[in-house]
Amino acid sequence: MKSADRERAEQGGELALLGRIRARVGTGSRSGVRLGIGDDCALLGVRAGEELAVTTDLSIAGRHFRLDWHPPEAIGHRTLARGLSDLAAMGARPVAAFLSLGLPRELTVTHGRGRAWVERFYDGLLGLAEKFETPLAGGDLAESPVAVADIVLVGAVTRGQALLRSGARAGDGIYVTGRLGGAAAGLEKLSELAGGARTVKFKIPKRLAGDLAEHLYPQPRVAQGLWLRRKGLATAAMDISDGLSTDLAHLCAESKVGAEIDAKALPIGYGATLEQALHGGEDYELLFTATEAVKMPGTIAGVAVTKIGRVMTLRRGRAPVSLVTPDGARTMTPHGWEHFA
Amino acid sequence: MKSADRERAEQGGELALLGRIRARVGTGSRSGVRLGIGDDCALLGVRAGEELAVTTDLSIAGRHFRLDWHPPEAIGHRTLARGLSDLAAMGARPVAAFLSLGLPRELTVTHGRGRAWVERFYDGLLGLAEKFETPLAGGDLAESPVAVADIVLVGAVTRGQALLRSGARAGDGIYVTGRLGGAAAGLEKLSELAGGARTVKFKIPKRLAGDLAEHLYPQPRVAQGLWLRRKGLATAAMDISDGLSTDLAHLCAESKVGAEIDAKALPIGYGATLEQALHGGEDYELLFTATEAVKMPGTIAGVAVTKIGRVMTLRRGRAPVSLVTPDGARTMTPHGWEHFA
Repeated sequence: MKSADRERAEQGGELALLGRIRARVGTGSRSGVRLGIGDDCALLGVRAGEELAVTTDLSIAGRHFRLDWHPPEAIGHRTLARGLSDLAAMGARPVAAFLSLGLPRELTVTHGRGRAWVERFYDGLLGLAEKFETPLAGGDLAESPVAVADIVLVGAVTRGQALLRSGARAGDGIYVTGRLGGAAAGLEKLSELAGGARTVKFKIPKRLAGDLAEHLYPQPRVAQGLWLRRKGLATAAMDISDGLSTDLAHLCAESKVGAEIDAKALPIGYGATLEQALHGGEDYELLFTATEAVKMPGTIAGVAVTKIGRVMTLRRGRAPVSLVTPDGARTMTPHGWEHFA
Repeated sequence: MKSADRERAEQGGELALLGRIRARVGTGSRSGVRLGIGDDCALLGVRAGEELAVTTDLSIAGRHFRLDWHPPEAIGHRTLARGLSDLAAMGARPVAAFLSLGLPRELTVTHGRGRAWVERFYDGLLGLAEKFETPLAGGDLAESPVAVADIVLVGAVTRGQALLRSGARAGDGIYVTGRLGGAAAGLEKLSELAGGARTVKFKIPKRLAGDLAEHLYPQPRVAQGLWLRRKGLATAAMDISDGLSTDLAHLCAESKVGAEIDAKALPIGYGATLEQALHGGEDYELLFTATEAVKMPGTIAGVAVTKIGRVMTLRRGRAPVSLVTPDGARTMTPHGWEHFA
């Protein structure tokens, strides 16, 4: 169908854009994708003894990203990273991604010799997809007054072995991969760079790109989740997308336990504050628990692992999560992101 | 987790809404859903020898529905119907649905003794989900300046037996289920009822509800798709979502064939015109082909089936699809819906 796709790509409208995407993604069978973009559904296969892990993550302009702050490549990268991170949290291997994209018409148009916003968005998304061997197998495309991107990830995991939020038990150690707060610190830096501008687009200076990497190009911990599952080391796991304080509260609620976090043990991200490490979202690190008997390595697949606290028995009248600092223990209230709050 | 869900439901914000949805959907294992709402991913199982069919459909306020015209129940129903119809087109059985919902805050708020828009939206969606035994297994929820709903359907189909768009061959008969144009006629009636009002909400008179049913509450042809696949009768299939002229052009392009449609054979919907039957979208009927040798029944699972034309060899310099009327044959140009057109 390549030549038909190219023909469509030379025309205008939705079919042209679909043709360009399809030509870039290709239609060859890769991993579990038996039929990709172009029919009513994609067809996927999984191996005997596996079950499916499915997740969807909705990103909306002005909420999850800003068209005037974020390079289109970073928005595409972050869109897919959110979904891959959910698979990582379950210890699932990626099988395929699906993208529903709603865009204002101007973002699909090429201006002069530059490339359309949507093409650069796909650069970022497909770049990360290639790195994690996750084919884009389908999705939807529509005109929308506001840019919205819903990413769907389908993964596979050995039946009955997925890492869940609900398995933490009192006495378990609490661990995180990587560092926390770097994404929030990067967002603050981005805001300073914009100088309070609300609509002016600007280019990010190359010398600052490194400081912003944890915010703009977070790396989902797929290999680390797979390793934890295969080794059977984690009793519970999830990814940190809304901030440690909020996500740890979710894990505790699902496991019906409490937790105690040691402030001085927290691996704080580059340029980040303790508050950002506790409450800043979008780090996409893994938060997991393991029994005390486990000898946890210092790194998993090249990423640092840090013990930050322990799981406690839930007691009536006591806050579920407390933070221990040199000045004593205090309640750790969830202050991460919540919609409609 | 029911009691934790109820507790959350009494608080405000996203977690409360999630809690209410989760309490309504339930967490018990149904069909293939091994783990539903509440973790990073849902876990699904399929039977040995099956492959997965996955589809996503994005609906956006002002494009696919109007908040001031469509009852929230109908918007919820139509959102899920779009996805189920894609499974029907492949002859797949539904396993689970996922919904990413972006809503303005006001649609989540209860006014006085009435129910919030979002609750009524879920009434419509979950009602259809129950009818088709399709559990809502997950999704995402976010605040958005524009209402958007992305529905994801995961289905299962015997490996290698899915109905594809690409299997039509010259000489095959072309068939549709049900009637065409009724949804477009209903939309026109709705527009007349609104009397050109752009923002005023109005109630649909009960006596007119029947005329609008094909538009407001389309019935996905899941049973018909399953029957066609099990009997092995269809050489190609797809659903009619963008209009017969546009969707038949897609089927012909994927099959590398042409087609001839007999205007007087078209089963025109209640109150609809020929133009609406040809180009009006959202009927969600099945369009399929079968070899001439097949004796097609007049109804499948209670829904009429009509032969409307035949598949032709594609010839250079001749339009792929023509419409035969009493006045002669003319080119049938795709005039259905296309975004960014």
